[in-house]
Amino acid sequence: MKVLILGGGQLARMLVLAAAPLGIRCQVVDPAAESCAAEVAPWHRIEWAALPEHRELLAWADVITYESEFVPTAVLSALATQHKVAPSAEVLQLSGDRWHEKQWLSRLGVPVAPHRCIDSLADLQAATAELGFPCFLKWRQQGYDGKGQWRLQAESDLAAVWQAAQGRPAILEAGIAFEREVSLIASRRAGGELVCYPLTENRHQEGILIHSRPLRDDPLQAAAEAHARRLMQAVNYVGTLAIEFFVADGQLMANEVAPRVHNSGHWTLEGAETSQFANHLRAICDWPLGSPQLLAPTLMLNLIGSWPAESLALAEQGAHLHLYGKAPRPGRKVGHLTLRASSEGELMSRWLRVQTILARRSAAPLP
Amino acid sequence: MKVLILGGGQLARMLVLAAAPLGIRCQVVDPAAESCAAEVAPWHRIEWAALPEHRELLAWADVITYESEFVPTAVLSALATQHKVAPSAEVLQLSGDRWHEKQWLSRLGVPVAPHRCIDSLADLQAATAELGFPCFLKWRQQGYDGKGQWRLQAESDLAAVWQAAQGRPAILEAGIAFEREVSLIASRRAGGELVCYPLTENRHQEGILIHSRPLRDDPLQAAAEAHARRLMQAVNYVGTLAIEFFVADGQLMANEVAPRVHNSGHWTLEGAETSQFANHLRAICDWPLGSPQLLAPTLMLNLIGSWPAESLALAEQGAHLHLYGKAPRPGRKVGHLTLRASSEGELMSRWLRVQTILARRSAAPLP
Repeated sequence: MKVLILGGGQLARMLVLAAAPLGIRCQVVDPAAESCAAEVAPWHRIEWAALPEHRELLAWADVITYESEFVPTAVLSALATQHKVAPSAEVLQLSGDRWHEKQWLSRLGVPVAPHRCIDSLADLQAATAELGFPCFLKWRQQGYDGKGQWRLQAESDLAAVWQAAQGRPAILEAGIAFEREVSLIASRRAGGELVCYPLTENRHQEGILIHSRPLRDDPLQAAAEAHARRLMQAVNYVGTLAIEFFVADGQLMANEVAPRVHNSGHWTLEGAETSQFANHLRAICDWPLGSPQLLAPTLMLNLIGSWPAESLALAEQGAHLHLYGKAPRPGRKVGHLTLRASSEGELMSRWLRVQTILARRSAAPLP
Repeated sequence: MKVLILGGGQLARMLVLAAAPLGIRCQVVDPAAESCAAEVAPWHRIEWAALPEHRELLAWADVITYESEFVPTAVLSALATQHKVAPSAEVLQLSGDRWHEKQWLSRLGVPVAPHRCIDSLADLQAATAELGFPCFLKWRQQGYDGKGQWRLQAESDLAAVWQAAQGRPAILEAGIAFEREVSLIASRRAGGELVCYPLTENRHQEGILIHSRPLRDDPLQAAAEAHARRLMQAVNYVGTLAIEFFVADGQLMANEVAPRVHNSGHWTLEGAETSQFANHLRAICDWPLGSPQLLAPTLMLNLIGSWPAESLALAEQGAHLHLYGKAPRPGRKVGHLTLRASSEGELMSRWLRVQTILARRSAAPLP
């Protein structure tokens, strides 16, 4: 099988590494000035709008997939008229716009936070009056890792935030006093075969995921799976998807849907019988899906801005390093570290020791 | 770190895939007409003798390693005068010649089968008179997967076998009535840090490994580790190594040493905390080694000649497919399948089902 991946970041890189053992060959498209997937697969620097003209490259692929939500849906729709595209352009259209996404989720009975569509400062004033403070203004499109999001504390914030948001189409979301954040990763084949990974608990700092931990037998697992199943069936979803939830009053409330492999599923590389990357590929190739079963207590820590010396990171037994080949830069995800242990207690001990190592790195960041 | 790998077969391919997450970049050299590592790393088709002239490529590398024992030791020695080479040229010289290898093992007190050095038909006649039948004539150099090996049943075989062996320098080995074949994979850093994987039981068919299974708490584990430690310390070994043993009368008898990652260690990709590939790279980069601990009951099956349809191979839960990107050809290792399960009983059930799938493939080989 031959797969063309749209987007050339670390998700593409990890897809390529998971594809090789399955005998799947990949090529990558990304218009950016660099691609960290280029170390492991041929990279084509092509503007999205120009992609449909690259007929030879498109014809090479048995299936076209994406790891970036920044691919214009119009381009994806154009490709889909002549090529197999998975997940579909329709899915990207639903999930790539926060307003459409909320409508989609609500329509299917998946609870979401109270929200309003914002096109003007007047809209924002009216909406904050209804939803109260704190609340969040978020661009409908193109935001990620806390970018394109603003917290509003009081009416006096409105004008400044609206200016910072450059008047772009947005939504306002009520602030949810959540107890914890979890995500569900699921993979589905066209025929309906579907696997759900254990719910994962996530912590964010300044909008960026800092760590994820799969939960064994969480009481909300069944409810989360039911939501995923409904969403995926409704659009005949093909591939891996992530749903981020808040847990408030012990209930799930969907925050957003990512129609792709997801940072909160990176632990599956070591912690699950089959990784989210392998299952995404198996799904889009229409091969049987692998078991999502948790193998052992596992924790994933993002390496943000820089990474510790390999000799420090690897000194901890059960630590697995994943670097993305990206230059260090403040706030940039440059890799992750997975810890695996034979018991929860051992995992916590490892985590404490590794936190010390990571703190040392922050004190003296690498060049 | 930047690693230049000499040899571009499946071992190089799997090294490259293990290197990427560690932030290690690889390039591959192989004079052959094709390289299955070329899909995942830049491949340079260079004759071994010409390699020392490629100064820019050599200078690019922080360390040079090899996955093929066919690299001439003279070339490796020449490279080692100006570059870091691991494992050393000395090691390849010892292990790359069956006569030297037997001398090395015996000198260090590792038991080997009775054997004689053979340079002529007269040598062969004298040696068979001493060692009896059955016995094995093996080329001193360049044999693998049963190639360059002949079984002698009776004196009447001598002339024909000597002709088939083209009179090349060889050894004669007494036939050992062994109970089982096992191998030990170990990794060592320059400073002496050393890890040994669980002993692995192997089955061969026509000289080719067909399956490997790691053993939990085998009574011969400690003895095998002592042998590995002695061999590796004696040559300040750096990297991963395999020792193949016969078990006869409940005792280990070394058959051969491979100074590289080894087919009987492929199960470590799913079955061990750290794979033999990752530990080879960590050793040659002088980073801390990872735990060799067995994670779960595991079995590795070689795919020889052809592979089953992915939809069949992956339908068995806990089956992990590894294809090497090689064209199918009788007797050629084109991939392997690892089975992992939560109990030995479940593993055996999976194995039985997969054998049925593989038998079906043999009945109707793929093009």
